[in-house]
Amino acid sequence: SLAYDHILEIHKKHLSPVATAYFQKPLLLHQGHMEWLFDSEGNRYLDFFSGIVTVSVGHCHPKVNAAAQKQLGRLWHTSSAFFHPSMHKYAQQLSALLPEPLKVIFLVNSGSEANDLAMLMARAHSNNTDIISFRFDKCTSFQDGTPQWDGLPIDCCQAKEQYIEQFKDTLNTSVAKSIAGFFAEPIQGVNGVVQYPKGFLKEAFELVRERGGVCISDEVQTGFGRLGSHFWGFQTHDVMPDIVTMAKGIGNGFPMAAVVTTPEIAKSLAKRMFHFNTFGGNPMACAIGSAVLEVIKEENLQENCQEVGTYMLLKLAKLRDEFDIVGDVRGKGLMIGIEMVQDKTFRIAPPMRITKPEVDFAVEVFHSALIQHMERRAKKNF
Amino acid sequence: SLAYDHILEIHKKHLSPVATAYFQKPLLLHQGHMEWLFDSEGNRYLDFFSGIVTVSVGHCHPKVNAAAQKQLGRLWHTSSAFFHPSMHKYAQQLSALLPEPLKVIFLVNSGSEANDLAMLMARAHSNNTDIISFRFDKCTSFQDGTPQWDGLPIDCCQAKEQYIEQFKDTLNTSVAKSIAGFFAEPIQGVNGVVQYPKGFLKEAFELVRERGGVCISDEVQTGFGRLGSHFWGFQTHDVMPDIVTMAKGIGNGFPMAAVVTTPEIAKSLAKRMFHFNTFGGNPMACAIGSAVLEVIKEENLQENCQEVGTYMLLKLAKLRDEFDIVGDVRGKGLMIGIEMVQDKTFRIAPPMRITKPEVDFAVEVFHSALIQHMERRAKKNF
Repeated sequence: SLAYDHILEIHKKHLSPVATAYFQKPLLLHQGHMEWLFDSEGNRYLDFFSGIVTVSVGHCHPKVNAAAQKQLGRLWHTSSAFFHPSMHKYAQQLSALLPEPLKVIFLVNSGSEANDLAMLMARAHSNNTDIISFRFDKCTSFQDGTPQWDGLPIDCCQAKEQYIEQFKDTLNTSVAKSIAGFFAEPIQGVNGVVQYPKGFLKEAFELVRERGGVCISDEVQTGFGRLGSHFWGFQTHDVMPDIVTMAKGIGNGFPMAAVVTTPEIAKSLAKRMFHFNTFGGNPMACAIGSAVLEVIKEENLQENCQEVGTYMLLKLAKLRDEFDIVGDVRGKGLMIGIEMVQDKTFRIAPPMRITKPEVDFAVEVFHSALIQHMERRAKKNF
Repeated sequence: SLAYDHILEIHKKHLSPVATAYFQKPLLLHQGHMEWLFDSEGNRYLDFFSGIVTVSVGHCHPKVNAAAQKQLGRLWHTSSAFFHPSMHKYAQQLSALLPEPLKVIFLVNSGSEANDLAMLMARAHSNNTDIISFRFDKCTSFQDGTPQWDGLPIDCCQAKEQYIEQFKDTLNTSVAKSIAGFFAEPIQGVNGVVQYPKGFLKEAFELVRERGGVCISDEVQTGFGRLGSHFWGFQTHDVMPDIVTMAKGIGNGFPMAAVVTTPEIAKSLAKRMFHFNTFGGNPMACAIGSAVLEVIKEENLQENCQEVGTYMLLKLAKLRDEFDIVGDVRGKGLMIGIEMVQDKTFRIAPPMRITKPEVDFAVEVFHSALIQHMERRAKKNF
């Protein structure tokens, strides 16, 4: 295997500079097993971010690996002009997890592709153009970067009425009278695990529908049981979206994503264009997606998110009480944010299988880091 | 496994209607091995379209499978904030196959993502907006559908001067004075294996650069040796693009794609935005990508495309001479189009490993189909 310095050199010369934005010397990872990662020197790490909320059921999970291996020897890819049984098995399993009328599935390769397709659907169905989403400055969630979205700046310490007033302002001043759609993550991910006040999303959906728009639940990070109490994030707000987008944890790291919508919206899209996706719904992705759904069910991972997530939230709340620099602890299930004073949020989203002893260990590590930080700060001030 | 009727029912209820656009009862494929596919009843098919030019080195190729299997047991996915050796090994291998200054690689998941990213790069680097590409009516090559592209209608029977005049017309009348970029497939794929007259692309690139734009070679279908004489399609036109996009055959069916550009253009993008891709460059994709490159080299598949492709072109040219309804036979290497009179083109792009006896068989099948078609037509006319 390549030596670290050589890898760093290749990276600087031949790869986009993303990784080095966070670390001067990024970790060189070699192996993963369940919630554990191993670097090139054999050091072990407890993974509390799952490759950005992607490795849902654990690195190299044996059941998911077995499914992948079986399909690997049969068929990787075929044009979507043909059928293959793994696609249909997956469609059946996934649609059973969604309420009526959300029953038509489009399989694509990434969250960006899923959200782009949802945007197309919203426009095709509504015959309008403007899309509303929350402001998202840190990176391009959408590949193309061309549509100028009207953002709604939301921060976490205002009440529902004020949120709704801001939302109405945006509807009245920044977009056309009739709109195409509204994207909402049930809990905002990259923005810093931001939750909405009770009832906000329900009222926002009504306002969007009054203006002819469709409501899109972006479950790229919140779906598949991670929030604990429900399988989908929209269910925690008691709303029914018209379109649901999903990715990240859907394939435990395999490039895969989906858009689920109503038969009516699917028809509107079909009338406007012939949508096609080369890799979307390939046999490998579908076999792996099925195995992930089965593991979540068999191993009660949704329940684990609920129980262990709540346990961690309570432990972290104690850190907030102990340290002034911990401003807020928020989230649901195993999607947790620790906001430092101020404006920096640690995001925690481990594989859904982590245990209470692992939480104890992680919180202890975080606690030690806070103590060390306070000591360094105290020294500086002398 | 699911019964065919049940699968058809699931498809109608839960999946987007793409597949059924071609067939009333699509083939149900179960297995693939090299250039062969097997349906649910055990019937064998010689695959002459590789899942739309995707399965480059053959279904379930043993070496590619072994690489996938090895990586499957190690690590599927990690955030791009970390390093993993398979990404760097791949970056080194791929960059070695491209001429200076095309040395910076961005790894994404699909041809759509690659072309969207290239579009962002062109705009970031040129500070212009308008992009020119060839008209492409059949389906959405680009996910978002929002940018209104200025198209250049090209058909195959005009000389270079006329093409260039049309191109100048478009530049003068349909876009701004300064443009962002120009997309060109070295041979147009979905449009019907359309080739340019000699020298057209070179002159077109000059015209684009005079107006401040960058030149993008879309090698999604033409790359990786398929054209036989060269590894990349742009090399067959003796031009040097500023950006190259690649997908389809890059991972032999694994969802994977890449954009390669110059350090300068990469810097322009980095200045304008923080580009990030969740699955792009994941360990599985890179390990598989490496194995594909090694197989192409070890098994002389580029040379095979050249030799067997030319052999097939010559055999098909005889069919054109024999049958009035065969209007044109064109293409290069194993990217071949048979244009029927008129406006319907059969596209042939088998796995790069097919043999001359397999070509004999395929051409014989095509020949029989033509005879049958002529007989049916003759009967109708009586």
